[in-house]
Amino acid sequence: MVEVSFEQISPADFFYRNRDIAGFSNPSRSLYTSIRELVENSLDAAEIGRIPPNIIIELSVEGQAESEGTAIYRLRVEDNGIGVDKEYIPKAFATVLFGSKYGYKQNRGTFGLGGTMALLYGQITTNKPATVISSRGGKEIHKFVLMIDIVKNEPRIFKHEVFKNEKKWRGTIIEFYLEADYTGSKAKIIEYLKHTAIANPHASLLFIDPKGRMYYFPRVTDKVPDPPKESLPHPVGVDVEAMNRLLANSKQKDMLSFLVSNFQRVGEKTAREVLQLAGIPEDANPKKLTHDQVTSLIDAIKRYNKFRAPDPSSVSPIGEELLSIGIKNMLQPEFVYVVQRPPSSYSGFPFVVEVGIAYGGNIPVTEGIQLYRFANKIPLLYDERADVVWKVVNERIDWSNYKVPRVSPVALVTHICSPKIPYKSVGKEAIADRPEIERELVIAIREAARQLKLYLSKIEKKQTAIKKLNIYAKYLPIIATCAGKLVDKKPPDITKLLGRLGIDEKTLKETQEKILKELEEKYLVTEEAE
Amino acid sequence: MVEVSFEQISPADFFYRNRDIAGFSNPSRSLYTSIRELVENSLDAAEIGRIPPNIIIELSVEGQAESEGTAIYRLRVEDNGIGVDKEYIPKAFATVLFGSKYGYKQNRGTFGLGGTMALLYGQITTNKPATVISSRGGKEIHKFVLMIDIVKNEPRIFKHEVFKNEKKWRGTIIEFYLEADYTGSKAKIIEYLKHTAIANPHASLLFIDPKGRMYYFPRVTDKVPDPPKESLPHPVGVDVEAMNRLLANSKQKDMLSFLVSNFQRVGEKTAREVLQLAGIPEDANPKKLTHDQVTSLIDAIKRYNKFRAPDPSSVSPIGEELLSIGIKNMLQPEFVYVVQRPPSSYSGFPFVVEVGIAYGGNIPVTEGIQLYRFANKIPLLYDERADVVWKVVNERIDWSNYKVPRVSPVALVTHICSPKIPYKSVGKEAIADRPEIERELVIAIREAARQLKLYLSKIEKKQTAIKKLNIYAKYLPIIATCAGKLVDKKPPDITKLLGRLGIDEKTLKETQEKILKELEEKYLVTEEAE
Repeated sequence: MVEVSFEQISPADFFYRNRDIAGFSNPSRSLYTSIRELVENSLDAAEIGRIPPNIIIELSVEGQAESEGTAIYRLRVEDNGIGVDKEYIPKAFATVLFGSKYGYKQNRGTFGLGGTMALLYGQITTNKPATVISSRGGKEIHKFVLMIDIVKNEPRIFKHEVFKNEKKWRGTIIEFYLEADYTGSKAKIIEYLKHTAIANPHASLLFIDPKGRMYYFPRVTDKVPDPPKESLPHPVGVDVEAMNRLLANSKQKDMLSFLVSNFQRVGEKTAREVLQLAGIPEDANPKKLTHDQVTSLIDAIKRYNKFRAPDPSSVSPIGEELLSIGIKNMLQPEFVYVVQRPPSSYSGFPFVVEVGIAYGGNIPVTEGIQLYRFANKIPLLYDERADVVWKVVNERIDWSNYKVPRVSPVALVTHICSPKIPYKSVGKEAIADRPEIERELVIAIREAARQLKLYLSKIEKKQTAIKKLNIYAKYLPIIATCAGKLVDKKPPDITKLLGRLGIDEKTLKETQEKILKELEEKYLVTEEAE
Repeated sequence: MVEVSFEQISPADFFYRNRDIAGFSNPSRSLYTSIRELVENSLDAAEIGRIPPNIIIELSVEGQAESEGTAIYRLRVEDNGIGVDKEYIPKAFATVLFGSKYGYKQNRGTFGLGGTMALLYGQITTNKPATVISSRGGKEIHKFVLMIDIVKNEPRIFKHEVFKNEKKWRGTIIEFYLEADYTGSKAKIIEYLKHTAIANPHASLLFIDPKGRMYYFPRVTDKVPDPPKESLPHPVGVDVEAMNRLLANSKQKDMLSFLVSNFQRVGEKTAREVLQLAGIPEDANPKKLTHDQVTSLIDAIKRYNKFRAPDPSSVSPIGEELLSIGIKNMLQPEFVYVVQRPPSSYSGFPFVVEVGIAYGGNIPVTEGIQLYRFANKIPLLYDERADVVWKVVNERIDWSNYKVPRVSPVALVTHICSPKIPYKSVGKEAIADRPEIERELVIAIREAARQLKLYLSKIEKKQTAIKKLNIYAKYLPIIATCAGKLVDKKPPDITKLLGRLGIDEKTLKETQEKILKELEEKYLVTEEAE
């Protein structure tokens, strides 16, 4: 008989064994992911306190590693966020799946994983502890030197120092060592910071790279966006588990007030109708519902199709204006058009899709559409082809309908925001093709593409007109002058005639000046040549 | 001051909140993933006991769900594997990250997640408990009815019954309910089973679908492949964490024998050289190494570049013969060529790449190459574009070099096997582009493509020859006969002449018969028409 032994492993151990799934697959990607996770924690820590974020990222070489192309780096990220209470610091940074309490609102992190994974990766590649310094702005600054006990999923504290906080400093500094490849990840890191700055114009980001080069993305506005509100769950999409947890914690004594108090979009009338559908008395005690009653309640909620759409106040879109400004800064396009869709929902979670289409300018001429994907105001730079946006752009939209040639300078910027982004992996790089999200993307992109089509038609018309004009502008005025001389009159006004040909005075002047300049250049060149 | 509260969540809670990352994003994919996870557990349970697997999958509708296109299904999977000891049953199926002890060998599962995730998904969509029945073939059969306490990550046992095992039955039966969409997943499920049968010709798979249709994939051979051996870790790729665990559990009293006994490919000479490089005495006590000594040891291993490649006995490839038979069964191609690469390694893990290229037959004529991806003998059907194979086929290989037209009936079957497949997500659908794996794929695919090129050139030649032949076959014999008559001799033997034109006697006969048939058909048609 084959003997099989079983064991239970800690979540830290699980992610240690499977770090590819969290985006730590090689020294180059791991550096990118580490910076990304820490910057996002910092943004959240500032935003929650309505503080305009100042984030300083410093990367320096500490020693040559033995594998090809990699070295040991020191990574230090400092922010001015709300800081972490001293009793939580070790666990928050050295325990996997320990994080700030889960709320029903938009935030950047997957629950309590990213920052700790960065430290864990550093620890297993360098065997060095990490340093965390934090203050909430009170009298003390706390400094911890720690490692992660991976088997136990617990912090191992090497040192804890307390400093007087004389300058009332507030924020968090994380410093650790990791085996990394900066050459292989530099382009992505800079792109990440640039795009993060665009989606977060209230943030100031400074990156000092190992050669001492500074990349500074100053804030464009001091206006910190309203932080997304924490809201009650919407009944649609609440599953048995979530319902059981709400029931167990109910402060209400009867089901009617339980439903009204614990869900959004549920008034007394709705609550009554749902309970009737479920066959549950209105005065039933929420803590004493039977297993079958819970099942009936969930079924009734699914059958009841009169709920209003989820409250979008828990999402925080970029907004048409900022998105448009961002795209202009990023790509200097000739043309840009932005669409913000009204809030929609999937599985009870509200979400908003924003899309910007841009043409020409600094956009490279390539086959297919250049994609710039954002989710909850963070750029997604890897695994593009696994993302729902790629699917929509390449499989659902026929770009020839919109006069977009196969090879052209077209960029599409998409932003999806939601209290719960359905990422396909812990690395948070690709969004799943939930049908509701796919649908909103299709609508938004089509609307934007129609505007691009109009613009492209105008360009085409104008180009045809300019071609004509090159001929008319040369000869018409001469003909007019000569004709005038023949009959001994002032030359006739040909503006109207040109107007009918689709040429306005401004364009006429420009074209004439251009022709003049061309002649001059020709002449000058000839003179010099002689 | 903003108050932030923290909490720690269990791994079950983490995966409950983030089920998209484990492949449970919608009712159709969740059904596919559930079947897949349970079938793979069953295959492993049989293989470990060298038992030819019999797996029976039954899916039936239990009730209409309220969401569109979905229903409540009952899923039952029965196998004849080695079974699970009664004391482990509840935890093995109702605790996340609890599984059979991690070993350094090839297996299908991610650690202790898949099967439990299927039950968890069923529980939160239906609020019904799952039933697990298992016996190791001894005197008793154990039946558990249970649910998962998601907050605590513990089983909640509703019922435990013990039956006499009079017929000495051995195996495991799992039965549970889930909200699912069979219509949307049917094609993928059948494809999955079909391809699993191809890669596991010693397995018998029976699937009974909700309409009572039976899909039976009988075993083709009784020969169970040698189960991959559990081996010692290779020193290259062992990180600090793994080293610390080995040191802590060392039974050896000195470092020299520690290295020799705990790693593969390390003899006394190698061990001595490594220790010298690390500056660690040979007789140092493994349990008393300092933090810095561990770091030096890891560094020395990375610097020491004379280790032999990892021992491939812990991987179990399909083999050229079986792969070729499988491809022929699956696609009935005109041409097939199979390449098995020698074992290679990444981060200390051995792996083997096998590739088969096929042309014509039942392969649909499409733009680009049809991909059939396998990893550790399981088919990967989702997220193709995120996979390293897709990258290699579409970005690294220029198919025009191999005379493969853009639109053609070409299929590529790839199999990667390793004790540790670097999946990009917990859903196990796409493999990361580790440089070593990418390189092996490029070499294997190029070799296969060269053979395809030769075949395609032959076809081309033959077609040109047949075109010529159509003319020669008509006139040459007549000319020969006439010429013979003129000089009153037997017609000369023109076989040699035809031979020089690349036409053998068989082809000549075939072509002549074909021409004859064409004439007959023409004649018959004409007659009928009149």
